[in-house]
Amino acid sequence: DKFYSDEMMYGRYTQELGVYAKEEAARLRESGQRRSVSERSRALDLLEYDKGRCARCRICTVRCQKFLISRVGEDWIFLILLGLVMALVSWVMDFCIAICLQAQKWMYGGLDSNVLLQYLAWVTYPVVLITFSAGFTQILAPQAVGSGIPEMKTILRGVVLKEYLTFKTFVAKVIGLTCALGSGMPLGKEGPFVHVASLCAALLSKFMSLFGGIYENESRNIEMLAAACAVGVGCCFAAPIGGVLFSIEVTSTFFAVRNYWRGFFAATFSAFIFRVLAVWNRDEETITALFKTRFRLDFPFDLQELPAFAVIGIASGFGGALFVYLNRLIVQFMRKQKAINKFLMKKRLLYPALVTLLISTLTFPPGFGQFMAGKLTQSETLVTLLDNRTWAKQGIAEEFDYIGHSEAWKHPQVNVFVTLVLFIVMKFWMSALATTMPVPCGAFMPVFVIGAAFGRLVGESMAAWFPDGIHTDGTIYPIVPGGYAVVGAAALSGAVTHTVSTAVIVFELTGQISHILPVMIAVILANAVAQSLQPSLYDSIIRIKKLPYLPELGWGHHEKYNIRVEDIMVRDVRYITLNCCYRDLHNVLLTGNLKTLALVESAESMILLGSIERAQLQSLLSQQLGRPRRLEYIRERAAAEKKRLLVLSNTDNEDGNQRASHEVRFQVSHTVVTKCCCDQETEQMMLDMNPAGQKIRTISCNRCFKCINICLKSLNAAKAHFHSLVCVLQIAEWEEMQLDEQVNFNNCKIDPAPFQLVERTSLHKTHTIFSLLGLDHAYVTSIGRLIGVVSLKELRKAIEGSVTVKGVKVRPPLASFRDSGTSSSENEATELHKLWDRHRSMSLPREHTPSESDEKSQ
Amino acid sequence: DKFYSDEMMYGRYTQELGVYAKEEAARLRESGQRRSVSERSRALDLLEYDKGRCARCRICTVRCQKFLISRVGEDWIFLILLGLVMALVSWVMDFCIAICLQAQKWMYGGLDSNVLLQYLAWVTYPVVLITFSAGFTQILAPQAVGSGIPEMKTILRGVVLKEYLTFKTFVAKVIGLTCALGSGMPLGKEGPFVHVASLCAALLSKFMSLFGGIYENESRNIEMLAAACAVGVGCCFAAPIGGVLFSIEVTSTFFAVRNYWRGFFAATFSAFIFRVLAVWNRDEETITALFKTRFRLDFPFDLQELPAFAVIGIASGFGGALFVYLNRLIVQFMRKQKAINKFLMKKRLLYPALVTLLISTLTFPPGFGQFMAGKLTQSETLVTLLDNRTWAKQGIAEEFDYIGHSEAWKHPQVNVFVTLVLFIVMKFWMSALATTMPVPCGAFMPVFVIGAAFGRLVGESMAAWFPDGIHTDGTIYPIVPGGYAVVGAAALSGAVTHTVSTAVIVFELTGQISHILPVMIAVILANAVAQSLQPSLYDSIIRIKKLPYLPELGWGHHEKYNIRVEDIMVRDVRYITLNCCYRDLHNVLLTGNLKTLALVESAESMILLGSIERAQLQSLLSQQLGRPRRLEYIRERAAAEKKRLLVLSNTDNEDGNQRASHEVRFQVSHTVVTKCCCDQETEQMMLDMNPAGQKIRTISCNRCFKCINICLKSLNAAKAHFHSLVCVLQIAEWEEMQLDEQVNFNNCKIDPAPFQLVERTSLHKTHTIFSLLGLDHAYVTSIGRLIGVVSLKELRKAIEGSVTVKGVKVRPPLASFRDSGTSSSENEATELHKLWDRHRSMSLPREHTPSESDEKSQ
Repeated sequence: DKFYSDEMMYGRYTQELGVYAKEEAARLRESGQRRSVSERSRALDLLEYDKGRCARCRICTVRCQKFLISRVGEDWIFLILLGLVMALVSWVMDFCIAICLQAQKWMYGGLDSNVLLQYLAWVTYPVVLITFSAGFTQILAPQAVGSGIPEMKTILRGVVLKEYLTFKTFVAKVIGLTCALGSGMPLGKEGPFVHVASLCAALLSKFMSLFGGIYENESRNIEMLAAACAVGVGCCFAAPIGGVLFSIEVTSTFFAVRNYWRGFFAATFSAFIFRVLAVWNRDEETITALFKTRFRLDFPFDLQELPAFAVIGIASGFGGALFVYLNRLIVQFMRKQKAINKFLMKKRLLYPALVTLLISTLTFPPGFGQFMAGKLTQSETLVTLLDNRTWAKQGIAEEFDYIGHSEAWKHPQVNVFVTLVLFIVMKFWMSALATTMPVPCGAFMPVFVIGAAFGRLVGESMAAWFPDGIHTDGTIYPIVPGGYAVVGAAALSGAVTHTVSTAVIVFELTGQISHILPVMIAVILANAVAQSLQPSLYDSIIRIKKLPYLPELGWGHHEKYNIRVEDIMVRDVRYITLNCCYRDLHNVLLTGNLKTLALVESAESMILLGSIERAQLQSLLSQQLGRPRRLEYIRERAAAEKKRLLVLSNTDNEDGNQRASHEVRFQVSHTVVTKCCCDQETEQMMLDMNPAGQKIRTISCNRCFKCINICLKSLNAAKAHFHSLVCVLQIAEWEEMQLDEQVNFNNCKIDPAPFQLVERTSLHKTHTIFSLLGLDHAYVTSIGRLIGVVSLKELRKAIEGSVTVKGVKVRPPLASFRDSGTSSSENEATELHKLWDRHRSMSLPREHTPSESDEKSQ
Repeated sequence: DKFYSDEMMYGRYTQELGVYAKEEAARLRESGQRRSVSERSRALDLLEYDKGRCARCRICTVRCQKFLISRVGEDWIFLILLGLVMALVSWVMDFCIAICLQAQKWMYGGLDSNVLLQYLAWVTYPVVLITFSAGFTQILAPQAVGSGIPEMKTILRGVVLKEYLTFKTFVAKVIGLTCALGSGMPLGKEGPFVHVASLCAALLSKFMSLFGGIYENESRNIEMLAAACAVGVGCCFAAPIGGVLFSIEVTSTFFAVRNYWRGFFAATFSAFIFRVLAVWNRDEETITALFKTRFRLDFPFDLQELPAFAVIGIASGFGGALFVYLNRLIVQFMRKQKAINKFLMKKRLLYPALVTLLISTLTFPPGFGQFMAGKLTQSETLVTLLDNRTWAKQGIAEEFDYIGHSEAWKHPQVNVFVTLVLFIVMKFWMSALATTMPVPCGAFMPVFVIGAAFGRLVGESMAAWFPDGIHTDGTIYPIVPGGYAVVGAAALSGAVTHTVSTAVIVFELTGQISHILPVMIAVILANAVAQSLQPSLYDSIIRIKKLPYLPELGWGHHEKYNIRVEDIMVRDVRYITLNCCYRDLHNVLLTGNLKTLALVESAESMILLGSIERAQLQSLLSQQLGRPRRLEYIRERAAAEKKRLLVLSNTDNEDGNQRASHEVRFQVSHTVVTKCCCDQETEQMMLDMNPAGQKIRTISCNRCFKCINICLKSLNAAKAHFHSLVCVLQIAEWEEMQLDEQVNFNNCKIDPAPFQLVERTSLHKTHTIFSLLGLDHAYVTSIGRLIGVVSLKELRKAIEGSVTVKGVKVRPPLASFRDSGTSSSENEATELHKLWDRHRSMSLPREHTPSESDEKSQ
């Protein structure tokens, strides 16, 4: 009977056959476990037929147990558990980070007698932590490095990156992140937390599948991962709404509104628990925002201040694009410098150590750090920047009354404006550099802080310019620079991540929504500017990491509506026909390198019947030429051979030898020799050969004829081996016969409904369908006839503007400006494809050679 | 050459052939206009070849013009225009409504000497306004009645409801809504505003298409409509974020994140302009929230108050479900009461007048209105409810100091709790009743106010219970009942609409986000309760209005993952084969009633080649048997006939007569007589018949043989008509011949890639694909072979739980409770389908009868 695979519609990115085999094995193991669970419950069912009071009690218990187990399958239990676990993880991590940072301060404070010792303490501490983090991650799970949002985006698109969701990665990410953030480097918690939450969901899902059957479903798992991303952001910032929206914007292209519920539910619960833990720990009196502001409510800002907010937005847009560009530049620079690179690759921990040394040296408070509030941690900096008092009253920086941490911004000689500018410039490149370190880290929070500082700078300037506010009639409403900081933070982080939900995140972080319109305006302007210049930070990392991706259709690229599939499709489709023979199969497998092949009715009609995965065809081929069938054939031959030998031994040997070598030459001339195995192997093969039957080691389909030929020549004299040779030839003959047989598709997984497009489907609609369904490729048909195929590659090319329609090169607006930034990464992406293809074609012969795979399975 | 229709993938709901024809005509007309525009620009191009200075200036002007026109195609210009127009509409409407309400107050206030006159003024004013609104809407565009969100949801699902997006509807909706809200009835502006914004987008799109070519694209229009929905909510409440989210939740099942941008951009701009207009009009000093609150920021609520918020959430969930149920009950009651109904249908304006009379009588301030703050308008009520002072200090209602409108809640004899309870109970049924009136109106705002009142009630109770707050250590933080009102408003409106974004809307409406966690918790609980009891108000209206819909997969219905397509598909698919004859086509059209038919290769192979719309097949059939081909045939015959007549007139007439009648009998016995036309018609036909040629009126394919037979008998004696009869018979013969010919599909629009599923696709995935792509039906194939079809109907049935899998009836949790509420509407929905089908099959013979359609086209 046949197996239908409906997962195929969601395009799997099966990397290697080995991985596939492992998965299958894991699935079998799991299903075995599940069976044992269900058998246990069946055994308990039998109890009901028992008698007596005790039995009744037991029945009752069993029923309760069964009810509980069935309830475990409910979504909301899963989501609550997820929220709870993530809130705990987030809180514990924050607690540890706070302790780490306090320890550094304590060391630094205790050594204030000696500046050199102070410097050593200030520098060594983060270097040790970062080096530990990098080393630990490297050893345990290198997948835990970086933000994790790009990987989650790829996974939610339907690509399987299994190794990113393991327990090892979870441990590496959590511990590595705690150390990295505890070092005080300008790194963020948000991106990695999206990954941690997804890891948590995947592990929880695996754990829960021990109880119920629902957790195996793939589409459900994807839904749960989407909810987990929301939880990650939600419990990191105590921002459930912003978390949901941010995760949607960052990870999805199409979003199911029914998932939205899950996200909201889990993120709210998680944020709630996260903040309740703070209350229980006596850090807070009640549940409030993380970075609470106290701006006045009656007159938050004047209408005439809006141009300043717009300026912040536009400048943040340029800044955000610059940040993404700088980050990529550093990565590419490090890769290109072969000499440095080699050295750094050898000592993998040296690069993060050096970067940390540089950054912590520059922030050393008695040194350069005094000009950029270097002694403040990231969250202290943010608190001071969002302060609702004005620092620069009437242009004189001296007058303002600092309390607490705000004092760090005060410098006896230097104006507060200079401090702010220095802070912005230094932190900008430091953050871009720090986020390239191979530790678990995000860039959201550093960018957020830089944005807040920039906003504060504009706000302080405005306050200095209009000391009594702009408002003319009646009451004096002084300008609130803290409001500008809020706007700047949202705008810059929005520009870097290409999201507008950062607006919601700042409202939830500050607990005030009074600046909604300025924030929205600035975020939208920043996005408009940044999106036309650079990809988002996450997309940039996706391209750097060479993950499979599909670029977005940007704003106003309305040429997209006019390009048709027929303009971009590949017309030369590799296909197999329903009545093809194994030889055709073999040829198709050798020449092409697509993951799936189209199955058509016949080469004349070209009616598309379905698609078959490459691996399926390979297994078909190896079945046909595989060990069991060969053994059977040999057994049959052996009996006939024995009889023949008795006859043959009587006739002239010379004659037989001649006939045999003639036969071999005939065979060789009729087959394509693809690869030659070494003579040693052939000899070994000859020795293994035993015409009597059982333990014959045979040659693969047609790659060894040359070897046989060589052997024949060398062994021509050695008549002792003659019979063996005849046998080998017979097997070769048999294989040729086998190859000419018609393929039997009965035991083959066929996807009977691969996605089909029409020639006149627009690029816009194609993009929609590809992103909606997470497709990898789609066939183009015309009334059932296969006429072309479109894969992600073609689509990507078309969207990125290298396709000509009607003689005119279609390019998105500002593309010339953009190309300077992205061309290299684009080249890399196509190189990736080539590389990948080469890898596949290289590994192909290995995979489909029956003899070797047979050997392995022994 | 062939026409491919790629729109078909998005399942059109072409209601009638007439509508289709109209659309086509409109499209042709439009393309004609566009051509004239492009011709004009080409004419301007020619100017460049002119000489002289003046010409150069003109060239420059023309180029600028062309540039401007090309820019008009950009999304952002469209969105800004849309935002601007909607902000203006919203502001002007609010202004008019405020004037209307003031006028009523002024009349009521001026007549305070005489209670009777006061009552008359209080009652007559709204009755006149509502009656005018109902009458105006009825006359101009009945589609403008109601909220419009259900229709927008249907339209965004891909169903074409063209008449809902016309200029007439726009005018009717705007004026009708202004009058309805000006009457002071408990009606809302939000739902209709979504419709108004969509209308505005559709009209603007039509207007802009005069300049650029991009506005014709269907998928772009859908995207713009989605953005427009966000603008509608955004500029109604000055809540851009909430507006975007609410519109997503209410109208979409799957949302493209790239649309999200459009929505945010347009909604922000719109909200900004809307609030700036208020500042310019000196209503406000600066841009602030619509219903600004001033709760304390440092300690918004205590952790121990959370159970009270949870109670509000759960109670609101039940209340929301009850509201939806009550609303539907009233509609169904009014429909079922035939006697009342007949009367009301005759006088269409009587029902709204009566309802208005009842409601305004009950709210008459000196009457019962004094116990329920009847003299306050809706927005005044909301302002008082969100007040941050406590009304009931230490349980004594007398003590609190009312200012302004809050006084309305004070009654000398009655406690404030009683006032609130009365308000809630009365407004609850009043709102449910008022929203059933045939005027443009929404239910969001009334529900929001009721929710706020309920929250205030709980808050006041809590304040009375804990006069010094719950917090124990240190400072006294009294309870803020206004915060409870905010929570209640969000929870109840969330429960009625099944959305969580009401949380965001309240933050934006009040300008404070400090209560985020209580609001989120209450909204989620309310949603969980309401969703398990009743559909959302909009889904309920969709079912009442019998619009095509697809129910949502709710929370935790994990049985959905186990149902397969093979369990729900219809195995008896109507299909046509590639080599079928017109007779088969005719039979298939007569028996089935599907909108599209499957085209397979042959009945044996059953390989699916594509699908064809019913209308296409009908036109194929009418082409084959249509007037032009018949005339041609008749002309040929006429020549032959004349020759034959010359020969025949010489032979025996009796003999010829016998032969002819024999021929007729033979024909009749070999054809299926489906319908008999009246004798009169036959006689007329006979008279029209003219063997000589030009103006012959003929009979349709095979429905008239009986008539001919009758005619033959009656006319047997009348030998003068003999030749005519022979002619008729020849035509019938010709038609039979034509029917036996093989169908030529060359001029037929075939959808070559209809959506295909596999037997083992899960219900969950099927639902996803149907809602993602807005499908109407999908074919189930097995390796290219068509084995079944699944339509929305089957899917709906399966989701609503009437499908048995493996012997067990799968029903969603709480279904038994739910059924009592929805069963009637469900029955109606299936009845709708039957009715629709009957209508189609009834209208079929009309549509495919060539003779009649020929007549029409003459």
